[in-house]
Amino acid sequence: MDPADQGTAALAALAAGPGDRAVGPALPPARLAPYVPSASPALLTDRYELTMLQAALSDGTAERHCVFEVFTRRLPPGRRYGVLAGTGRVLEALPTFRFRTRELDWLRAHSVVDERTLDYLADYRFTGSITGFAEGEVFFPQSPVMVVEGTFAEAVLLETLVLSILNYDSAVASAASRMTSAAVDRPCLEMGARRANEQAAVAAARAAVVGGFAGTSNLEAGLRYGLDTIGTAAHAFTLLHDDEESAFASQVATHGVGTTLLVDTYDVHRGVERAVRAAGTGLGAVRLDSGDLGALAVDVRRQLDSLGATDTKIVVTSDLDEYAIASLAAAPVDTYGVGTRVVTGSGAPTCGMVYKLVARADSTGMLKPVAKASTAKTSRGGLKAAARRFGDDGRAVEEIVLTGRDLAVRDWDPESEDGDVRPLHVPLVVDGAVDSRWVGSYGVQNAVDRHHEARAELPRGARRLSEGEPAIPTVVRDVG
Amino acid sequence: MDPADQGTAALAALAAGPGDRAVGPALPPARLAPYVPSASPALLTDRYELTMLQAALSDGTAERHCVFEVFTRRLPPGRRYGVLAGTGRVLEALPTFRFRTRELDWLRAHSVVDERTLDYLADYRFTGSITGFAEGEVFFPQSPVMVVEGTFAEAVLLETLVLSILNYDSAVASAASRMTSAAVDRPCLEMGARRANEQAAVAAARAAVVGGFAGTSNLEAGLRYGLDTIGTAAHAFTLLHDDEESAFASQVATHGVGTTLLVDTYDVHRGVERAVRAAGTGLGAVRLDSGDLGALAVDVRRQLDSLGATDTKIVVTSDLDEYAIASLAAAPVDTYGVGTRVVTGSGAPTCGMVYKLVARADSTGMLKPVAKASTAKTSRGGLKAAARRFGDDGRAVEEIVLTGRDLAVRDWDPESEDGDVRPLHVPLVVDGAVDSRWVGSYGVQNAVDRHHEARAELPRGARRLSEGEPAIPTVVRDVG
Repeated sequence: MDPADQGTAALAALAAGPGDRAVGPALPPARLAPYVPSASPALLTDRYELTMLQAALSDGTAERHCVFEVFTRRLPPGRRYGVLAGTGRVLEALPTFRFRTRELDWLRAHSVVDERTLDYLADYRFTGSITGFAEGEVFFPQSPVMVVEGTFAEAVLLETLVLSILNYDSAVASAASRMTSAAVDRPCLEMGARRANEQAAVAAARAAVVGGFAGTSNLEAGLRYGLDTIGTAAHAFTLLHDDEESAFASQVATHGVGTTLLVDTYDVHRGVERAVRAAGTGLGAVRLDSGDLGALAVDVRRQLDSLGATDTKIVVTSDLDEYAIASLAAAPVDTYGVGTRVVTGSGAPTCGMVYKLVARADSTGMLKPVAKASTAKTSRGGLKAAARRFGDDGRAVEEIVLTGRDLAVRDWDPESEDGDVRPLHVPLVVDGAVDSRWVGSYGVQNAVDRHHEARAELPRGARRLSEGEPAIPTVVRDVG
Repeated sequence: MDPADQGTAALAALAAGPGDRAVGPALPPARLAPYVPSASPALLTDRYELTMLQAALSDGTAERHCVFEVFTRRLPPGRRYGVLAGTGRVLEALPTFRFRTRELDWLRAHSVVDERTLDYLADYRFTGSITGFAEGEVFFPQSPVMVVEGTFAEAVLLETLVLSILNYDSAVASAASRMTSAAVDRPCLEMGARRANEQAAVAAARAAVVGGFAGTSNLEAGLRYGLDTIGTAAHAFTLLHDDEESAFASQVATHGVGTTLLVDTYDVHRGVERAVRAAGTGLGAVRLDSGDLGALAVDVRRQLDSLGATDTKIVVTSDLDEYAIASLAAAPVDTYGVGTRVVTGSGAPTCGMVYKLVARADSTGMLKPVAKASTAKTSRGGLKAAARRFGDDGRAVEEIVLTGRDLAVRDWDPESEDGDVRPLHVPLVVDGAVDSRWVGSYGVQNAVDRHHEARAELPRGARRLSEGEPAIPTVVRDVG
């Protein structure tokens, strides 16, 4: 069966409205691939996870108890900290990670794996455990931000999905955090959907909020995660009308004087004049989307004040990033709208996190540390614990990564350490059961709070935009 | 209703297998947000599209006939051409872009738009027309790669979705094309899912193939678009086993001697020795994933040959991009596996395409060109046609963008031009009916072919990796 033919029935059912056909006569329906044919993320997976599974099932190692660890070897050049985001999305995806007829039939038809493996996949559900940093927590090189334990079979299948989610979401949250740092107490709004893959945009909106953004233009993100959504009008709305006056009058008539009018379609000075004429001095805000935003904001502020619109805010947009935001600190700007640069991680569109097997049972059932040994990519094997040490001023001074015999690591009590040492791992999934604190809109709010606190506890230098070393060193200690 | 509660029933139905519960006792089910709660892309939309719609419905301009154009003002720094990708995905999404109870209820509950607008959305389907460059075609600054015509109401709603898809997919295809150029006739394989948002990864695999890649590791992309999928084993598979010998033996036993063995977990020289011992001289390939790949490939080739494995291929992976691929041209490498850099656009993770209103009917029904006029972002208003002029050697010499009165533009016949001038716009959607040539696996194949031909027709300098100007100039002509 041609893959393009799959799911056609489901699509046709979705697309056909009452008494009409969404698909016109030029389109043979059997040819139309559905837009999102599946709610299961099971095949958002690299083929090698399944071929490894097949070989392991057949040689008996598939049931070996394994520990996989997610970490990054380095931060993007010059960055002082990273922000973990996506944990809640991993947990939301986990119960739906099931292989159903659609997936199994395709794997069989394309001989991706054998019948025994298909049988395993048909019954697959993750019954292991996951611990990790709380979503929103800051991280550093080698921080074990997530630890997945289970049989090789059940844990290896999650590699691609876990990394896809954490790498992208954390890249966005890390950039967002720098932007909200630079904006100090002025709100940042995420408007980048048009510059990111359409589904990535939903994740980006969520991650930007974890990084401190106040809202998003993305409606699906609003629905899925309870985020505040924002947006009023683009230049197209003004251009649609015979003149700027009628566009502004229409917008104010429909959305009230508290709306934001986009004033730079023709001439900013006249635009501001017309905006205040249309809405009165109670106008909510004007938006500037081009030109020298700093100088323009000064002029527009003066003009608004002279017109009596002293409470009207100024929103600026147009290729902003953390540096542009910082450069506008002295300008009379009230709100920053950020698009491209936040959804693309401001120069670091992925985090470089990896999902490495660090320990596994040997043939006697003993858990043994393992690590690649050949070259520069060397990682530290073994189960890890992680904690952060704080100084007398309450600010973080070092990231402690503990390793050693697994029992010693599991038994380690940060309370027994000298000084203020706080553990970083929280339970996320216990024997297959997801901890609900980290999912849905509730999970996002927890992540927002965690990030706000964690960032406030970093050394002061951590928030500088200039390039530098990680804000605190990572110290790997062996507990024997 | 808490957004996190939505769709719970659907999720529970999906997650619950026969006789078990995917969600354990620690999880209050009402709290679990579904992973992909909807197959409708309708809310993958910026809020301002809907607020503009509401105002336009209320002032009577919503029914004005409009022409929106997708183009980019510039290529990423130094790039000589762009590759259009995503057209087929736009067309696949279009019939499913419908507002159903889930979306309408949320918009109402959050007062995003008024009842009149909700009524409009409930009946929404796109009945207009879309023309554009064929997917896979190359583009230059100002190339009108897609033109959407319809009422303001129906066309404005598509802005976010169209741009999200085209910006990301084209960014990936543009990077992929440079990599496959650099690889000349050695295959490139896409393995970047772990470095991209999980759903973006599917689009990235598809776009990489449009840009000339031979296959992908992403299974969902294989299913949805009929792409060839690849992958055998990661380091975890070797580390799972007591030693490299048993890992290789297991892989060969299960997948045959034609498999690819990853030889750099411990020591490459020993790894190659063990690989040939496990599979014999018929071993399909070895993969190198770290170290100085060029020097290593020379050593490994010599070793393989000396062991009699003269037909065993060498696959290299590890942070490859177009420059790394070019630098390996003289090395005895057979296949390149590319991850991070292709799915993140190799430094240009989005294309900067915009969706601009360029013409709309006035109150008398006449189509009038419109354009933002205030600042540097000025665009050229008016309906456009596009064609490419070729020289006597069959290579492209200029991109012609025609504008002027809409009737003159619509009537323009490239055949009437001197020399070899070929039109670039093809019909994609006619009165709401999608042209099936561009969707599904069939559409991908058409795009692959189009890109292959279009790139071959560029001036020779276009494929250089060094920074330069666009390969051909864009000439905007007014036909009056």
